[in-house]
Amino acid sequence: MTDEPRFAELRRRLGEVEDLRKARQLLQWDLETMMPPAGADVRAEQLGTLARLAHELFVADEVGTLLEELRPYEESLPYDSDEASLVRVTRRDYERAHRVPAELRAEIVRAGAHGIKAWQEARAANDYARFGPALERNLELQGRYVDCLDDGGDRYDVLVAEHEPGLTTVDVERVFEPLKAGLVPLVTGLEPPTGDALEADGGPEVVRGVLRRLGFDGEWGRVDHSVHPFASSFGHGDVRLTTYADGGLRAVYAALHEFGHGLYERGVSPALERTPVGEGASSAVHESQSLLWENLVGRSAPFAGWLAGVLAVDADALYRTVNRVERSLIRVDADPITYSLHIVFRFELERELLAGSLAAADLRDAWNERVAGYLGLDVPDDRRGVLQDIHWADGLMGYFPSYALGHVASVQIWERARADLPGLDEDLGRGEFAPLVDWLREHVHRHGRKFTTLETLERAAGAPFDPEPLLAHVRAKLEETA
Amino acid sequence: MTDEPRFAELRRRLGEVEDLRKARQLLQWDLETMMPPAGADVRAEQLGTLARLAHELFVADEVGTLLEELRPYEESLPYDSDEASLVRVTRRDYERAHRVPAELRAEIVRAGAHGIKAWQEARAANDYARFGPALERNLELQGRYVDCLDDGGDRYDVLVAEHEPGLTTVDVERVFEPLKAGLVPLVTGLEPPTGDALEADGGPEVVRGVLRRLGFDGEWGRVDHSVHPFASSFGHGDVRLTTYADGGLRAVYAALHEFGHGLYERGVSPALERTPVGEGASSAVHESQSLLWENLVGRSAPFAGWLAGVLAVDADALYRTVNRVERSLIRVDADPITYSLHIVFRFELERELLAGSLAAADLRDAWNERVAGYLGLDVPDDRRGVLQDIHWADGLMGYFPSYALGHVASVQIWERARADLPGLDEDLGRGEFAPLVDWLREHVHRHGRKFTTLETLERAAGAPFDPEPLLAHVRAKLEETA
Repeated sequence: MTDEPRFAELRRRLGEVEDLRKARQLLQWDLETMMPPAGADVRAEQLGTLARLAHELFVADEVGTLLEELRPYEESLPYDSDEASLVRVTRRDYERAHRVPAELRAEIVRAGAHGIKAWQEARAANDYARFGPALERNLELQGRYVDCLDDGGDRYDVLVAEHEPGLTTVDVERVFEPLKAGLVPLVTGLEPPTGDALEADGGPEVVRGVLRRLGFDGEWGRVDHSVHPFASSFGHGDVRLTTYADGGLRAVYAALHEFGHGLYERGVSPALERTPVGEGASSAVHESQSLLWENLVGRSAPFAGWLAGVLAVDADALYRTVNRVERSLIRVDADPITYSLHIVFRFELERELLAGSLAAADLRDAWNERVAGYLGLDVPDDRRGVLQDIHWADGLMGYFPSYALGHVASVQIWERARADLPGLDEDLGRGEFAPLVDWLREHVHRHGRKFTTLETLERAAGAPFDPEPLLAHVRAKLEETA
Repeated sequence: MTDEPRFAELRRRLGEVEDLRKARQLLQWDLETMMPPAGADVRAEQLGTLARLAHELFVADEVGTLLEELRPYEESLPYDSDEASLVRVTRRDYERAHRVPAELRAEIVRAGAHGIKAWQEARAANDYARFGPALERNLELQGRYVDCLDDGGDRYDVLVAEHEPGLTTVDVERVFEPLKAGLVPLVTGLEPPTGDALEADGGPEVVRGVLRRLGFDGEWGRVDHSVHPFASSFGHGDVRLTTYADGGLRAVYAALHEFGHGLYERGVSPALERTPVGEGASSAVHESQSLLWENLVGRSAPFAGWLAGVLAVDADALYRTVNRVERSLIRVDADPITYSLHIVFRFELERELLAGSLAAADLRDAWNERVAGYLGLDVPDDRRGVLQDIHWADGLMGYFPSYALGHVASVQIWERARADLPGLDEDLGRGEFAPLVDWLREHVHRHGRKFTTLETLERAAGAPFDPEPLLAHVRAKLEETA
């Protein structure tokens, strides 16, 4: 075989793997939006089978051989070409995946589906103890997963690299330490907010109207409701968001956040469809896009002015409401200033859980201590404490750091976009979003997963992770809205 | 290996195959209810991949070996035991499937997804010519499929056996000939209906209310809207129906029909979950259940009386409206008397298409001639003619006869149920459906696909297909509502 048919054969095989992965994601989407509750047990089996088969097809010897044979082809092409990038990224994925047994992958997925059910029941009962066994099971499986990939460094490195190709735990700490040092004095000095928050509830149609104006098109996208908003994509022409069922400000801003994720998936070059590079670069880059729309567009004065017109409310009241700062118990409701501290302590707890220095049975107490220490708040119950996030229930560990990294990156990318688009504020004030969408597509979205986290950030923002712009941004916000 | 671990290994393998099949069905359900239009092309690939992998896993040599090794185990157990039935039915499926290349299965599924898109576009343009190429492609693939399984008899036998295990084309003709002979004089003698039809539109909530009363429970079921109502099931705890988006009588009766399908899937013994026998016995038996609820329950005077109360309309007007008889162009809107004739001519056209004596290009003319000859109607356009059904677009051939066979069986099963349940009319009049549901579960549903079409019918109705009860039923209806 020469290079072209060899590359075509690689793409054919990867296309099938992607079909199985997307099918699994659709089953997961359905589980969270549509599925009757009694479907949960069989759905866990279906998810596990799809995960196992996708894994088996991907780690097939033939894929490894093709990747080896394609080295000269890859080296003959520019680093940033679609073809070289596909071979390079697939090889990186392959080298990790072929060290993990397919049955372990399937078991992690099945345990995640069962874990979500246990977590829902524990939440309904407001009792962490009922979730403990499921978390222990997930931790055991994560431990076995890390064993497969452990090269003798920090075991948490394995999980960081899962979500942020090329990064290590030390890289995360280098961003988190100055972030913590900068934020803790700001947060501990916070006064309780004064004045009432604006109530604006336009119903679900307002959310749809805002999304349409942003360019989210029913031809290729849809919006549903779920307890925990999320975005998914099953192809270039099939991007889905969820938000809260009501149409209040919380639903609008959750929709803005998920729109950022969806727009990213939509913006990936269609030439990368049905390949491992046909999606967002990493979790942090993904979060940079969602947070850019939620916080930097959504909480800006021009956008708030435009949205106030749509909602027929006072612009100044809306702006002050969406920029209220308050130490709070729930991560997803946290303002952009306290948000990162919610992440920092989850990162610390995850590391301790994985290292075995914290037992699952002691997690509730450790959580409550950390909230008291970082945010100065008492946790009144588990639902507003250790049971608030779905991630650990789903077996997703090592993801949390990406939120704060994305938060940091969002400001870096935003500042670059502002420098390139001098009319941006005016555009946002008029509800004209196309120039920003085009800029993001050009500088971030179209590359998909061709580059590592840092390569992608370098292309978009011209620099590695730097918490200073975020700290400067929140200081300025605090002064302005004080 | 002894028999027990061998049987467990067979079940494990079949469980995975079922997981892939159910995942594919969920992708198909999603395509028809939720998917944004631009998702169609990638979805066709995903469906094809899932079909191919399910096929490959099923026809694996290991499955064939296990089935051979399990012969003594099967023979040591009662014919109607779950275990013997699973081995027997799986062997029958395996012997067919292993003669069909996996890539052909995948191509049929992909072509079906593309065919549905072409059909939708042709319908929008009301122009059969735009659908012709997709139909030709489907016919070519069906021809290749039949080639794989052709044993020298009538080629259409292959398609009949696909939907009705154990039946041949001659068996179908033996039912259809007396049906045609009995119905044509009735239909050609029909006078146009007099009086206005009742309009009753309670909105979607009425449909949900009726379904709840029937025992369709949100814990394991859901209802959505689609252009063409259908039912699917992704597990014992996940049964889904669709109906028309409005809440008019048409939506209520379509929901009753799909409820019959869904109740059947729900009623299959949970012990058969994730196996090839964990679903309805055949298409005809499935249709017998949907038509029983739509026509024999739904169009009975006691049920109409109860429903009139729910809808707050006149009971007699409702009864007359749902029992109106009229020669009409659209199969799914046809009354129980003219319905079978719609099927008989489709069966004839399919046989000619498959035999090659009718070309796809000539199908529209042949259709219109047949409608004139059997129903005495002129077809005004393709949408109300040859483009009305989705089946051929989806590559589903040989299915239509099952509708009329199911129609015949529905009356046979209904009469047996009535004989066993002397209080049935009173129950229906009170909106009390549990005794009938229990009877159907005991005599039909719980067996799943353990038995052939005729074995299942024999257990439920005590006789093979017999069109006489249907003919007697429609004659009595005609007299009563004349």
